[in-house]
Amino acid sequence: MAETKHGGDLPRGFGWGAVKAGIKASGKLDLAVALAPRGANAAAMYTRNQVVAAPVMVGRRHLAATGGRVSAVLVNAGNANCATGDAGLRACVETCRAAADTFGLLFDEVFPSSTGIIGVPFPAEKILAALPRVPAALGTSPEHAELFAQAIMTTDTRMKVARAVVDVEENGSGNAGSVRIFGCAKGAGMIHPQLGPANGPKHATMLVYLFTDLKAETEELDALLQAAVARSFNTISIDGDTSTNDTVLLLASGASGVTLDDRVGPAFENALKLVCGSLAHQIVDDGEGVTHVVTLSIQGCATEADALKIAKSIAHSPLNKTAWSSADPNWGRLMAAAGYAGVPFDPERVRIWIGDQIVFESGMRAALFDEKAAHAVMSQREYTITLDLGVGSESCSFLTCDLTEEYVRINADYST
Amino acid sequence: MAETKHGGDLPRGFGWGAVKAGIKASGKLDLAVALAPRGANAAAMYTRNQVVAAPVMVGRRHLAATGGRVSAVLVNAGNANCATGDAGLRACVETCRAAADTFGLLFDEVFPSSTGIIGVPFPAEKILAALPRVPAALGTSPEHAELFAQAIMTTDTRMKVARAVVDVEENGSGNAGSVRIFGCAKGAGMIHPQLGPANGPKHATMLVYLFTDLKAETEELDALLQAAVARSFNTISIDGDTSTNDTVLLLASGASGVTLDDRVGPAFENALKLVCGSLAHQIVDDGEGVTHVVTLSIQGCATEADALKIAKSIAHSPLNKTAWSSADPNWGRLMAAAGYAGVPFDPERVRIWIGDQIVFESGMRAALFDEKAAHAVMSQREYTITLDLGVGSESCSFLTCDLTEEYVRINADYST
Repeated sequence: MAETKHGGDLPRGFGWGAVKAGIKASGKLDLAVALAPRGANAAAMYTRNQVVAAPVMVGRRHLAATGGRVSAVLVNAGNANCATGDAGLRACVETCRAAADTFGLLFDEVFPSSTGIIGVPFPAEKILAALPRVPAALGTSPEHAELFAQAIMTTDTRMKVARAVVDVEENGSGNAGSVRIFGCAKGAGMIHPQLGPANGPKHATMLVYLFTDLKAETEELDALLQAAVARSFNTISIDGDTSTNDTVLLLASGASGVTLDDRVGPAFENALKLVCGSLAHQIVDDGEGVTHVVTLSIQGCATEADALKIAKSIAHSPLNKTAWSSADPNWGRLMAAAGYAGVPFDPERVRIWIGDQIVFESGMRAALFDEKAAHAVMSQREYTITLDLGVGSESCSFLTCDLTEEYVRINADYST
Repeated sequence: MAETKHGGDLPRGFGWGAVKAGIKASGKLDLAVALAPRGANAAAMYTRNQVVAAPVMVGRRHLAATGGRVSAVLVNAGNANCATGDAGLRACVETCRAAADTFGLLFDEVFPSSTGIIGVPFPAEKILAALPRVPAALGTSPEHAELFAQAIMTTDTRMKVARAVVDVEENGSGNAGSVRIFGCAKGAGMIHPQLGPANGPKHATMLVYLFTDLKAETEELDALLQAAVARSFNTISIDGDTSTNDTVLLLASGASGVTLDDRVGPAFENALKLVCGSLAHQIVDDGEGVTHVVTLSIQGCATEADALKIAKSIAHSPLNKTAWSSADPNWGRLMAAAGYAGVPFDPERVRIWIGDQIVFESGMRAALFDEKAAHAVMSQREYTITLDLGVGSESCSFLTCDLTEEYVRINADYST
């Protein structure tokens, strides 16, 4: 038997740590390193944005050169190193080279990431100056892993981490033991990840690192990662702005010795989805100015793609997002946004529920519409809106949030 | 010669007026009527939203039945009569019938429009009770036309009207005289019109009425209207929310006796574009919470459709709209939004100007970037952002605005 559980110990074969390099204006931890001394097989997905940050270009090049091997992840927060031209690219390469020297690795086994402001020259010198202090900061304890998770934060108010373990019993095959997963993420604004495999011009501001001690090939990791991302990071949106740096990286050290077989495969897939689902939820819950987290359950569509179109149309509608901020059961705005999603349907067949309260059916306000009860549902921090299009049997679940004055304040904040 | 001028007298063949029917909670004018006693040829365009308000369904049916003849326009503000089911449809028909009786017209020569809240039962009885007071309120003066323009307002803070005149000199053809255009509009939120011809399942919350005394057939008016709408109402956005009731109606009374010929055609087309352009600008300028009006000039694209994709991606990006509200020259957000528009390009070839200030070229911040000067441009109420994609030679101009805390306050306002 292979059992999936939340929590558990950290995966073996990795060390984590962080130091202050002086890139964040706040002076907080801003240079994070994860080290796999014996290397790790890697799978990565990047934003589909046409504009790509330097570390994304370098990271893709390195994974291609090594056939998917990573020995160190080098992340800075405070500067995205995006739209910084050739100088930005050279600066990124320089920091990878320095990290390789520091840890005694091959240059292209260093995977770089950056997050922060776009278009400001990249302060490579600060990273070079801080790197010698990193080895002493590395460790394998939960506290060390959390320092890594804290250092990658930008406008996040909370650290985002999740763990799972797959316990595989001995059954005579010899493939047994505990497989552990540790994931951490950052992201609170510019969040509408549209991640694709590594073969396009892509990049992101959501950063996700997934560490496991499973023993698996790059191709196996690719498939596992794509399945987990499809139902987690690719079905959330805070503001609809797809970043230029979004990256999700899965590293497998192999230290557990457990490989994927018929028992382990489904259990590990499930564990990875648990971790990704938890991190995706934490990202929306900590979104800039968010006061309500809304799950859009779109059902009765001809295709899952249609369901996603309806969900995104609603999730990106300022009129719906502002109504959610005041718990206003304005289902007319839901119908309007569904109506311009580009998916054909007959309004007469649509049904909408807010929580367990039906609010719309037969082309008009439901006979049982109870405004007070619907308002009460929406007064909770988190609830589900269900829309059945009445066309087919496909569906999707999409996680989003309200739009508040605080979001505007955070993103309009500008001091010359 | 045929000369196009701003301003001028009102078109002949129409009367306008408005009364208080008690639909607006404020108690202001809310029932507007325009009467063409001898009838008018009509062209209309409606929203492409799948969810259509009752008056849009009835209006389309009436234009089809009459072959494009309208003798009265009946508009109420305060209730959109949308998502109101069969009862809403019956209520709309009932008000058209009563208006026909009141003015001695054929039932299907009445063109109905509604704007206001979606999904609340339509108070036809208030309109029936107010109609007998309308004939005494009608007149042909500018004051009467402005009462019409005021009554159709909802969250608008200003009345939106524009006039133009085409003076056609006698040249022996006998086709001479003055052709006049009067246009009025309402709309301040849920503004991202995507108007199409009358042959699809459509409707809207931007309402535009264009009156002229040109003598023209319905087919001629259709072509003129589509050309004018393409470069005005279809290239503006306040919040990206395409309404369920958007309607643009062009009525030609023929009272000038002037017909379209080689001289009049281009001059009238120009005059209609002037009026539509002015009204479209007034709508964005009066958008909910707007403090900055931004023209996006997207150039160097392979197709005009690509240019529009880039423009809309930027115009609907909360991160750009909030940056504009604080005059923050954050060109990184412009590049990010262009990058996820779904249009292929090479960031190295893109150039961006804020006003006359170049801010981005050669893949990075422009060498001549002057943050203070760019901030000064953006501190004006109105300015242009130019983005040259460096791909081809097609372009578009798109009018939009910032996103402010006031927009959120207006649309989050909910009192149970």
